[in-house]
Amino acid sequence: MLNGDLFIGGERRAAGRRFRAYDPGKGAEIPEPAFAEATALDVADACARAEAAFEAYSSRPLAERAAFLEAVATRIEALGDALLERAQAESGLPLARLQGERGRTCGQLRLFGKEVLEGGWQGLRIDEADAARVPPKPDLRLRHVPLGPVAVFGASNFPLAFSTAGGDTASALAAGCPVVVKGHPAHPGTSELVAIAFEEAIRETGMPAGVFSLLQGASNDIGAALVADPRIAAVGFTGSRAGGTALMRIAAARPVPIPVYAEMSAVNPVVLLPQALKARGAALAQGFVASLTMGAGQFCTNPGLLLALAGPELDAFLADAGGHVSTAPAQVMLSAGIHAAYERGKAELAGSAGMRQVAQGQADSAPNRGAAGLFTMTGAELLADPERAHEIFGATSLVVACADEAELLAVLRALEDQLTATLHADAQDLEAARRLLPTLERKAGRILANGWPTGVEVTHAMVHGGPFPATSDGRSTSVGTLAIERFLRPVCYQDLPEALLPEALRGEGAAGIPLRLNGTRRL
Amino acid sequence: MLNGDLFIGGERRAAGRRFRAYDPGKGAEIPEPAFAEATALDVADACARAEAAFEAYSSRPLAERAAFLEAVATRIEALGDALLERAQAESGLPLARLQGERGRTCGQLRLFGKEVLEGGWQGLRIDEADAARVPPKPDLRLRHVPLGPVAVFGASNFPLAFSTAGGDTASALAAGCPVVVKGHPAHPGTSELVAIAFEEAIRETGMPAGVFSLLQGASNDIGAALVADPRIAAVGFTGSRAGGTALMRIAAARPVPIPVYAEMSAVNPVVLLPQALKARGAALAQGFVASLTMGAGQFCTNPGLLLALAGPELDAFLADAGGHVSTAPAQVMLSAGIHAAYERGKAELAGSAGMRQVAQGQADSAPNRGAAGLFTMTGAELLADPERAHEIFGATSLVVACADEAELLAVLRALEDQLTATLHADAQDLEAARRLLPTLERKAGRILANGWPTGVEVTHAMVHGGPFPATSDGRSTSVGTLAIERFLRPVCYQDLPEALLPEALRGEGAAGIPLRLNGTRRL
Repeated sequence: MLNGDLFIGGERRAAGRRFRAYDPGKGAEIPEPAFAEATALDVADACARAEAAFEAYSSRPLAERAAFLEAVATRIEALGDALLERAQAESGLPLARLQGERGRTCGQLRLFGKEVLEGGWQGLRIDEADAARVPPKPDLRLRHVPLGPVAVFGASNFPLAFSTAGGDTASALAAGCPVVVKGHPAHPGTSELVAIAFEEAIRETGMPAGVFSLLQGASNDIGAALVADPRIAAVGFTGSRAGGTALMRIAAARPVPIPVYAEMSAVNPVVLLPQALKARGAALAQGFVASLTMGAGQFCTNPGLLLALAGPELDAFLADAGGHVSTAPAQVMLSAGIHAAYERGKAELAGSAGMRQVAQGQADSAPNRGAAGLFTMTGAELLADPERAHEIFGATSLVVACADEAELLAVLRALEDQLTATLHADAQDLEAARRLLPTLERKAGRILANGWPTGVEVTHAMVHGGPFPATSDGRSTSVGTLAIERFLRPVCYQDLPEALLPEALRGEGAAGIPLRLNGTRRL
Repeated sequence: MLNGDLFIGGERRAAGRRFRAYDPGKGAEIPEPAFAEATALDVADACARAEAAFEAYSSRPLAERAAFLEAVATRIEALGDALLERAQAESGLPLARLQGERGRTCGQLRLFGKEVLEGGWQGLRIDEADAARVPPKPDLRLRHVPLGPVAVFGASNFPLAFSTAGGDTASALAAGCPVVVKGHPAHPGTSELVAIAFEEAIRETGMPAGVFSLLQGASNDIGAALVADPRIAAVGFTGSRAGGTALMRIAAARPVPIPVYAEMSAVNPVVLLPQALKARGAALAQGFVASLTMGAGQFCTNPGLLLALAGPELDAFLADAGGHVSTAPAQVMLSAGIHAAYERGKAELAGSAGMRQVAQGQADSAPNRGAAGLFTMTGAELLADPERAHEIFGATSLVVACADEAELLAVLRALEDQLTATLHADAQDLEAARRLLPTLERKAGRILANGWPTGVEVTHAMVHGGPFPATSDGRSTSVGTLAIERFLRPVCYQDLPEALLPEALRGEGAAGIPLRLNGTRRL
């Protein structure tokens, strides 16, 4: 089924340089197929076709746009086990996880299909004319329109849900934007299979072919050329801080700068408040290590930093958590590069001044296995060396023992901004929790109580975002229906004849679509 | 009443270097007072006080925030004629215009006060828990929170409505953000008077003093230090493209980049479609020159570019418009710098290859008087020399005679992006208008029919924005209630105990505030 083709707005291409996929579990290349590496011409052609498709795609009735997203989901499901097996070989992730991720991916596409139909994202507003006013008040009508073609970068850690047909793609398509995907080189076969599903869904629903392209390749030059292309209007990315900030720089240096939505890095601080720690330390230790080691710790929301007050309760927690970590089996990591970076990061943490290693997970000499790690230092030590709180992508966490609540708050304030912040609080902790909340609200896109940050629900009220450097743009989320707003801009129509107005804005607005009429909201 | 003080979050300061205001109508300095020039320390102190005030200000009940905006408006009105007279001396704008602008400024503050109370800008969303689901679905609640302290740059061309208490200040305060204003050096006395109104309103409503600061000075270093300050979370600016892009670069180069909302430059293309031109060419010529020369052409939405098909109707229009331009009196421009730049720009346009001058307004040897100018070239000539379509800030416009509709569309496509685009279309022009609309939607934030772009209504459905280089961020508007969204970011609360939730998100949400509950909107 796989040819190693590029998908350039309806045309398949495979010429020139090739690269191969890698099976991290086996530590070996996957021989077939060899994947075509996109050239600068391929990038330009994909962007040109996306631009050419923009007007046709964005002006299709919303029901057709929704049906297209639904069809992509159905076609992905129809790929069957072939998709899961290829994804497993390329990512080292367990099959059960990938089954769940496929469900999440298709559910996400369908949720955005429903969101397209709901229509509230258009933000319709009408202010009616008043000819009697001096000067006369014009008729003003506002809607949100799509930005233009969007570049999406596949993420290595979600080869389905944040890759070729993942959240960024789904939300951009829902907004009415054609998408040019730069596939992640860690899972090119998975990307190609999903591109085949797109090809079929485009044919089936009669969408313009340029609405989707897949560029593959191991070189960073492809992504750089894509973001620099004048036809690209916005960028969606999930990955490293180095990668995300490089794209931000390219986007800002363009003759016409464009928005970049890069979800980059976080340690997702978890605060164990005293009463919770005292009442249920053992359960917290178990929940913490389960969250820490899930998926080899390769989640954006992995709990990489824990804060609590020093004392016998924290010592007991550390002993419990250390016990769980020391029996945790090593797990295959997503790629040799990620595994090597993890080992480097862990070794650097272990070797830093004042660091105590609490526990080390089970070793495994098979390729690319990452063992969990648990470390501890005091709040004062962390305040003196704040870089220790930077993300190590993988199942390693640092427990910070603070002298008192003031020091704990100082540590929180000294942290970089985050995707999530979590409080474990019992009834007697609520006052302390209330004192911490304003700081957490400044710092993170999502605040959790008595849970763990891994597990990001795809729904309306989710925020998977946060101020820089958690993301490049804290005004947005990359998970949940609010993500559609990233790819929209408002346009106002003044005194336009009814015949020229978009249908949704005629008269007193289309029935059933939320609207603000002369300032008053109407459903 | 004026001392030349800086207003640093409740403290008045006036030490060190001084600068003086300038009366462009007289071409002379205004001797009193000498205004203090802010130092780097003043900038840092203002930012520190804004940051210190953030939590207190943003957590005040919305009714108090609205009352504060209302009080600022009332205190500005109470300044009486002293404000208008000072603004007239510093800007050269007619008293009637400044009266109108004061009304707009105070109306804008009150409109944002009402918007604060309406509450829909919080974008509340609740997805209720489902413990029966596998895995259990958490309780998720979302609201939008203010970004943090905002730097606002006063604009020279709206010394009231887009300056110290102008649209950017009003929308940032409405969002819950303290504001540090960099006053425009062309009207420091006007800014100081408005700062006195702020001082009184803050005292009267018991707001934290750090919620407002006014930094003055003629040096660009002050603004650069302000945007670079780590406590500033966003920037609002109206001014030149050079100024706006300089701020964009500073903001992007910070360790923590921040959003910049800069409204910069536009020529606001106006298309006269054939039937409209034929049926009412004389009236169009009159309306055009009135819009062009209003306020000495010193509006962001000034019609600097007109497009129509070449032919006898356009020749007649040019003759009529040229007649009106040639009798138009010269007008005082806002500053010697703006006047000099206008004369330079007009001379450069006049001297460019193929340019024909249609008419020249009345000359006036008094200081800083700008005479209107009307030029014409063909579409082919403009396509060969697209820089001729760049903004000349003032009452000069270029009429582009296109060979046919295809060339007219090509010229529109070749233009940079714009704040507005206008179509004059009669019934028989509607098909042509429909063909142009998709291009105009990509290019501009506001599309007008059968009107003129000057005159920007402050209301709900207004968009005063547009893709770069019209603004730095086409996803927003700087006029109208939608402007509040520029200074907000979403935060999600997962499984938070009721007692820790923001009031508006408890239970099924606060009564009377728009909410999305499990995906369904509720008013």
